[in-house]
Amino acid sequence: MSSFAHLLLAAVFAPAFTLLVAATPAFADRSNGALVIEDQGSFFVGGEVLNRGPEDDVTIHQMYVQYQIPKGNGQTPVVFTHGCCLSSKTWETTPDGRMGWDEYFLRHKRPVYLTDQVNRARSGFDATKINQVLTGEIPPNEEVAPPIGHVSHQTAWGIFRFGPEFRVPHDDGQFPVEVLDDFYKQMIPDLRSYLPSPNPNWKSLSDLAAKLDGAVLVGHSQSGQDPFEAALTSAVGVKGLIAIEPVGCSAGVFPTGRTFSDDELAVLADIPILVLFGDHLETGIGGLWQTLFQDCQAFVSNVNDAGGNATMLYPPDLGIFGNSHMLMQDRNNDQIADLILDWLATNVDKKR
Amino acid sequence: MSSFAHLLLAAVFAPAFTLLVAATPAFADRSNGALVIEDQGSFFVGGEVLNRGPEDDVTIHQMYVQYQIPKGNGQTPVVFTHGCCLSSKTWETTPDGRMGWDEYFLRHKRPVYLTDQVNRARSGFDATKINQVLTGEIPPNEEVAPPIGHVSHQTAWGIFRFGPEFRVPHDDGQFPVEVLDDFYKQMIPDLRSYLPSPNPNWKSLSDLAAKLDGAVLVGHSQSGQDPFEAALTSAVGVKGLIAIEPVGCSAGVFPTGRTFSDDELAVLADIPILVLFGDHLETGIGGLWQTLFQDCQAFVSNVNDAGGNATMLYPPDLGIFGNSHMLMQDRNNDQIADLILDWLATNVDKKR
Repeated sequence: MSSFAHLLLAAVFAPAFTLLVAATPAFADRSNGALVIEDQGSFFVGGEVLNRGPEDDVTIHQMYVQYQIPKGNGQTPVVFTHGCCLSSKTWETTPDGRMGWDEYFLRHKRPVYLTDQVNRARSGFDATKINQVLTGEIPPNEEVAPPIGHVSHQTAWGIFRFGPEFRVPHDDGQFPVEVLDDFYKQMIPDLRSYLPSPNPNWKSLSDLAAKLDGAVLVGHSQSGQDPFEAALTSAVGVKGLIAIEPVGCSAGVFPTGRTFSDDELAVLADIPILVLFGDHLETGIGGLWQTLFQDCQAFVSNVNDAGGNATMLYPPDLGIFGNSHMLMQDRNNDQIADLILDWLATNVDKKR
Repeated sequence: MSSFAHLLLAAVFAPAFTLLVAATPAFADRSNGALVIEDQGSFFVGGEVLNRGPEDDVTIHQMYVQYQIPKGNGQTPVVFTHGCCLSSKTWETTPDGRMGWDEYFLRHKRPVYLTDQVNRARSGFDATKINQVLTGEIPPNEEVAPPIGHVSHQTAWGIFRFGPEFRVPHDDGQFPVEVLDDFYKQMIPDLRSYLPSPNPNWKSLSDLAAKLDGAVLVGHSQSGQDPFEAALTSAVGVKGLIAIEPVGCSAGVFPTGRTFSDDELAVLADIPILVLFGDHLETGIGGLWQTLFQDCQAFVSNVNDAGGNATMLYPPDLGIFGNSHMLMQDRNNDQIADLILDWLATNVDKKR
């Protein structure tokens, strides 16, 4: 879509959003030419040593982070954290082989950090309690050692709002359902029910932002509220917060209830916040997404009432329809990314 | 080390290796300047749908693959597979922040593919049997549902030959033990005991080599023999095999016995093979590494007797001392990488 067409759409459908869209004078080159990297690598944040017995230590609760820094960067880094039952693969090449947001943001001169959540994928997990049950040391007890979450194709279809019925996509659906079986390969066992409290992801994200001397934290779905909690752990390095299809904002409808105090709202009001939802909120799991959306609308208002700068980005308001829960993999993922990049340019980079 | 010094060392310590080292006229620039990428991304190979009940499907046994292709490449791609209790992090930034082999090989114009083994890290795992025990559906039975492997710091120290006693490094040890605690964050739970037979990694590696229209397969430690098994599954795309500190070669001393038939040896004799061990084989776990080394020496002889092209690369023969089991993270990891790059240039690329 040309810059002009985009501006026209924005003007027609959502005048309040025009300034935000207009902040980027022209949309960047989307071609897939050579990419010039200044630095890339991986490291861990956090982690603690668990002593299981004499001369028997393991490290648990570390967070794996993979990063790339583009040549000529000068913009605030972005830290992407995936949601339930997924890994950082979320942000990489789409199931139908298009460019993921990791590379798209990088090509727009933004340092990109991908985290595998604590207890997921390359971050490993604490297998102690599971092993105690497997060896008969303790009896099965789902309070102590719950079953490992591995969400089914059918459940994911509903939660991710790919269509009204399993394998029946929305008429205007943006998710590439023709490669659904490849998408499902991203869905892996999820051991977050074995995390201690407070969730170690929060401090690790907060520490990472401080280590980077400033970063925007992005969460998705199950981790959608994690950027807020990270900022409330310590806001030192937190320059922006983006919640993509979070499972609630202030009230935290699901999975854990949470109401922010006035002091907490004051912290959040000091940081630019973007909340983003896709389309077809009515489908899925019994109207839950509409409830979560409304909760986040109230949160955005509360933050702004507290003097903050919070924005709800709902693409249908801009005439962009059919986005799923997995906006970063939808066919128009570059269009959605551009909206976020515009928001970053206006609300975060200019404030540095 | 300069090219001249290297040639001198090679000439003094191992005349038979001179040709191999001389193949690269000068060692490449090791500075950490801008990196020009032609393409990068990730995808899955393999995987199957497991039906757990009505409308309850999950995908298992897929292999996650992450890749980068340098600008101006024309060389055979290299596929790196990590070993026990680790992930692809093995090949990335070292614990003390130096360049990993993933980037080093890329900077030497070689397409690099990193796999997370099936049942590890971003590839996920099949949690079915574990969950049956956790929910009390079946009783604990270590034959059916063994404890999840999570190797301790102390055991790893011995197996990886970092020094004669825990936290006492070898005098000439190359592993950066000053960042040992960061290294241990790479060690994650290992669910390979839940893999079916034949090991799905073998077909996935073989399929990946075919998909790439030619690749060199590299295994390490527990996966050291996997390249051989992948080639025996189908050698169509397999252009070279590299076993780094494998847990045995032909006899497969540990963990599974394995003797190659004459037909199998004939297949392997048609592919260039490099076997690489570090130093201090006498330390660790009761002389096991010496046994494994001898087994691989016999394997190399057997392949060559069958008309093949197999090389044992033992750095002490070249006057390079102190390497650990984790050669790709040792302080001289670039020096070891150069030896592999030389072998590739002479034995693989020229044969294309």
